[in-house]
Amino acid sequence: MNLQPPKGMRDFLPKDMIKRESIISLIKQIFEKYGFDPFETPMVEYAETLEGKYGEDEKLIYKFKDKAGRNLALRYDLTVPLSRVIASNKELPKPFKRYQISRAWRYDNVQKGRYREIWQCDIDTVGSKSLLCEAELISAFIEILENLKFKKYSININNRKILDSIARYANVENKKIKDVFVSIDKFDKIGLQGVKKELESRKIKTDSVKKILSIITLADKPELLLNKLEKILGENEGINELREIISYLKQLKTKPKYAVNLTLARGLDYYTGPIFEVYVEEPKVGSLGGGGRYDNLIGNLSSSDNIPAVGFSLGLDRLIDVLNELKMIENKKTLTQVFISNVSEKNLKYTLSIVNLLRENNIKTQFDLMSKNLKKQLTFANSLEIPYVIIIGDDEVSSKKLKVKDMNSGKESNVTVNNLVKFFQK
Amino acid sequence: MNLQPPKGMRDFLPKDMIKRESIISLIKQIFEKYGFDPFETPMVEYAETLEGKYGEDEKLIYKFKDKAGRNLALRYDLTVPLSRVIASNKELPKPFKRYQISRAWRYDNVQKGRYREIWQCDIDTVGSKSLLCEAELISAFIEILENLKFKKYSININNRKILDSIARYANVENKKIKDVFVSIDKFDKIGLQGVKKELESRKIKTDSVKKILSIITLADKPELLLNKLEKILGENEGINELREIISYLKQLKTKPKYAVNLTLARGLDYYTGPIFEVYVEEPKVGSLGGGGRYDNLIGNLSSSDNIPAVGFSLGLDRLIDVLNELKMIENKKTLTQVFISNVSEKNLKYTLSIVNLLRENNIKTQFDLMSKNLKKQLTFANSLEIPYVIIIGDDEVSSKKLKVKDMNSGKESNVTVNNLVKFFQK
Repeated sequence: MNLQPPKGMRDFLPKDMIKRESIISLIKQIFEKYGFDPFETPMVEYAETLEGKYGEDEKLIYKFKDKAGRNLALRYDLTVPLSRVIASNKELPKPFKRYQISRAWRYDNVQKGRYREIWQCDIDTVGSKSLLCEAELISAFIEILENLKFKKYSININNRKILDSIARYANVENKKIKDVFVSIDKFDKIGLQGVKKELESRKIKTDSVKKILSIITLADKPELLLNKLEKILGENEGINELREIISYLKQLKTKPKYAVNLTLARGLDYYTGPIFEVYVEEPKVGSLGGGGRYDNLIGNLSSSDNIPAVGFSLGLDRLIDVLNELKMIENKKTLTQVFISNVSEKNLKYTLSIVNLLRENNIKTQFDLMSKNLKKQLTFANSLEIPYVIIIGDDEVSSKKLKVKDMNSGKESNVTVNNLVKFFQK
Repeated sequence: MNLQPPKGMRDFLPKDMIKRESIISLIKQIFEKYGFDPFETPMVEYAETLEGKYGEDEKLIYKFKDKAGRNLALRYDLTVPLSRVIASNKELPKPFKRYQISRAWRYDNVQKGRYREIWQCDIDTVGSKSLLCEAELISAFIEILENLKFKKYSININNRKILDSIARYANVENKKIKDVFVSIDKFDKIGLQGVKKELESRKIKTDSVKKILSIITLADKPELLLNKLEKILGENEGINELREIISYLKQLKTKPKYAVNLTLARGLDYYTGPIFEVYVEEPKVGSLGGGGRYDNLIGNLSSSDNIPAVGFSLGLDRLIDVLNELKMIENKKTLTQVFISNVSEKNLKYTLSIVNLLRENNIKTQFDLMSKNLKKQLTFANSLEIPYVIIIGDDEVSSKKLKVKDMNSGKESNVTVNNLVKFFQK
């Protein structure tokens, strides 16, 4: 029998999961102080809910039927299910700010850093058109990256409205504008020449291609770049929106790790305004996630009034891959703080009383469950790198004193039972 | 378009998810102090991994093919995937103690308290035959139920070996012993007469049925019941195992909320020894979860040496249903502690500086994102039951003093900016 998880999906042993949990807990804390609340949806959706939302990537959705013939699908992201919930719970007070750290599935090519079961960390603000929402999302993400001690990274910002204006300025026909977005979206992977070829293969006129490429490769500090762009495109809603976001970021005292990047397009069909991505420059891992404004998605789902929304999503898997590569995250094989070693059946009762005492005081404790000899018990504690071991023998039982061994330094301390809890809480 | 989640699956709005997270956090804390570490597997497995493990309930597994024709399935429980991981990572130090709070899917009849997407809280100890493992699992679960303030509940304990002996004592043929387990397992749902009919319909002889029923309905305090049973069955491994577990529970000073219940059988195919369940008597909700020893499952998966294991699983969904029904859990619509109200564009910068100050000090803060008027901002804060509101107007900006309104009592406090953080940390 094949004992592996399905291709592109992974098991997480405690050493992996302890890291994952510590990152998730840091991210949650930041999401919550920004006023986002926890939220969940099923991992499974009706297939029709997901269809027509993801552009070319729709083919990556896992679809299946249940025993009653219902067309179901594993969710592809967290945004479309959120939109469904908003559309079906119109009474929710707005703005509705939620976070969600959960999984999605994409039948993608499996390669380094790309998996078929992915974990995402999302925040979305629903119900407000204010660009303060964008600023808040960007600010929260920069705070996360700073807390994780990233140095060389940037939140790249662009606007679908600007890309639209660039395409129009370059005389691209209306029906081909989406093609332009899809091509530009590949800039990071295939480079300038690649995008050029891609645009040409999509039958965009040579003159248009030239104009598009000359504009999207402009680079400068955010305000200066927007000024340059305005000189080319004229007064422009997209440009003004980015100016407003940047002004809010300054007022929020957000660390200036953001940049306007005109090559950013984002693949998803549903974005309508500002878009952004987390881009890590060192090591050269590229995008760790992204987001943007999607003012029409919820309205389209429910065929009623639009409800504006904007979201930002961080991919947990690549994030953790990077943190591992850069050794930016502690390795830990267990959360257990103390192992109680006992080699004599007759001292079991005393051993368990010490176990109880520690656990009652919330100290994470294991004890021998396999009647191993002392040496094997110590080998076990060592293999898990449990920081402290207490060895219980006849002397310890009669004296009510315990030897606590620090497994890192090898140092032994004599601690009375009365002082034991204090010893570990120090 | 259908805006509902698939049948039997549910969305969790912040008011639901805040409860869920608070229960999960309590359970995690207890699992961790008992020395269990976090662990995860994919939500999707190869179908063959799950086949032949769940007895009659195997038909409830969601199966499907991916685009390459692989036979996949949504996981049905957390135990079989754990066993797969153990079988494929033989080098893991033993005992291997892991917890997992995650989802599984069962194509079950949807009814009150029964869902198709279920959340489970599992602990398993792998690699040890010691009955100390059983005692630890039971002890951890009693601690959880005590922490949740349950009053009328019991951890029911039985042993597959005892049920086996009872069936043999009643002269049931070997090949029908599994039928006896399946019938007894329904005792709680269909009662004594129901089990009688069920056994008869499975062609168990009348005399055998009579003997079985007269034994399994014996009831008394654990030790006394086991003594009675021993008088009938004679010296018995299953009885001695339960005696040993009870002796460990006493040494662990576990609150005596456990009982030996001979009608407990547990449906799953893979149990080999002691079995247990969480049974809540008031309100009459019945089983909230269960578990047992499965010493052969891992060996069967890998066609190699057996690795003993024992686990206990709590169903989070029914647990939370019960806590809600009994009003044993706080209702909260948001985690946000403070809402900052601002009605004038020109005071935005000052408003954001206060927002920053609070968030920097880890106080969960929202502010107006929709340019609402003051009344509507207060209505919003009220609708989410945010406990404090700070209103920022021209006076507040010039005086560097803030009015903090306690939304429960209506009381207003004047707080200087310098004292603001302290005010909320008090």
